[in-house]
Amino acid sequence: MNTSIIGSGNVAWHLGKALQQAGHKIVAVYSPTPSHRKELAEELVSAMTLDSLDMRNIDAELFLIAVPDAALASVAAQLQVPAGAIVAHTSGSQPLAALRGIAGAQTSVFYPLQTFSKSKPVDFKNIPILLEATVPETLHPLQLVANSISEQVYEVSSTKRKHLHLAAVFACNFTNHLLGISRELLQQADLPYTLLQPLIQETIAKAMQQHPFDVQTGPAVRQDQNVIEEHLKLLQDQPLYQQVYQLLSQSIQVQHPKE
Amino acid sequence: MNTSIIGSGNVAWHLGKALQQAGHKIVAVYSPTPSHRKELAEELVSAMTLDSLDMRNIDAELFLIAVPDAALASVAAQLQVPAGAIVAHTSGSQPLAALRGIAGAQTSVFYPLQTFSKSKPVDFKNIPILLEATVPETLHPLQLVANSISEQVYEVSSTKRKHLHLAAVFACNFTNHLLGISRELLQQADLPYTLLQPLIQETIAKAMQQHPFDVQTGPAVRQDQNVIEEHLKLLQDQPLYQQVYQLLSQSIQVQHPKE
Repeated sequence: MNTSIIGSGNVAWHLGKALQQAGHKIVAVYSPTPSHRKELAEELVSAMTLDSLDMRNIDAELFLIAVPDAALASVAAQLQVPAGAIVAHTSGSQPLAALRGIAGAQTSVFYPLQTFSKSKPVDFKNIPILLEATVPETLHPLQLVANSISEQVYEVSSTKRKHLHLAAVFACNFTNHLLGISRELLQQADLPYTLLQPLIQETIAKAMQQHPFDVQTGPAVRQDQNVIEEHLKLLQDQPLYQQVYQLLSQSIQVQHPKE
Repeated sequence: MNTSIIGSGNVAWHLGKALQQAGHKIVAVYSPTPSHRKELAEELVSAMTLDSLDMRNIDAELFLIAVPDAALASVAAQLQVPAGAIVAHTSGSQPLAALRGIAGAQTSVFYPLQTFSKSKPVDFKNIPILLEATVPETLHPLQLVANSISEQVYEVSSTKRKHLHLAAVFACNFTNHLLGISRELLQQADLPYTLLQPLIQETIAKAMQQHPFDVQTGPAVRQDQNVIEEHLKLLQDQPLYQQVYQLLSQSIQVQHPKE
């Protein structure tokens, strides 16, 4: 499918390359920053660069918007596409209705559920792609495109995608923060972070195989008050981490009441 | 080295098998539960089963205590070993001093830093083993034993081991709990947990390569108050999860002040 990409960040970069590799023609790349659109167009060999959101004359059936969430409303207000073209945003947190204002377009969502960095190649095959369309007829062509790069394609409503995004904040953003705290605590004790890596990997591997609540370990679930109090003492100069320790221990204990 | 194992749980099971495979002779296995000691002795072909902690006549140089933390004091109070034998406990949270009372023994710690389940085989080669000894002469034989099963052997004091244990609570126990919450949130929205797995795996892989604070993503670090408030609204019937969301977002924002 002839595709035009609006944006030049990590998602635009990886998605554009995956689509090109699957045989789709990337006809145009838009970015307000000249060097950014040029850099991406060098990767997407058939793409011209655009500095305007008036795309009424672009020969494409699919327009993928891959811009920061905060820029989406402004892009949607300015974007003009050929009548009947499919326009999809790629955001996890924004509803389909964010594209409401685009005249004559079949608005939809094409959300690849992964965290991207330009420097790190990704295998799209295993990345879930979540689709949503305003009218059912749009769904089939979107599914064909999604299936051409991924083996995990789902139709998910804006409401469900919002719940999914909330779950991802717990599973990824908060988890990452806790790993950062653990790294800081090791540094303070002059211990190498590599010490904890096998344990972290095994914890995650177990949590993938079983419900994490069923394999919970540690002082909180053991109701080991001596160890908990010693840990809180070690954290006495870091009151926010002390609060995090207390609240998560409490949450674990509410989840696993004493037998 | 001729070794005797006190305990028959997950650590005793995996450590015993790894030592046997490395060519050490496991001469005896103690457990207060007949079926448990019998079951383990079937795995450790040269081992006799013991129902008493009077081991003065056991022909072993190393006595490894692998019992629950709560049972360690009682085992240490009853254990009797040949004069000069090395006695090591395998606990992450207990100090070396927990073995103080064992007469005539060279007390020490032999702590494999991993979470074990009997049903899941582990590769000891990559499991850090943390050693500590009351007298320096004990350290060398312990190192030989540890090096025979693992490539990651460290000498770590009781104080440092306590900090390490605290860091592990954040990195593993708390992380596991957050993964459990995310799974529950997905279930409530009738979404499959598999959706989040690629994202979780990529998050962990990144956090292993870089300092997690340097790769933090999500609404808190973006100071995206709209999304944060929507998420808190979704959690309104789960006040404890709401508190966890607020406190971790606050902790992320303190760590990453607005530019």
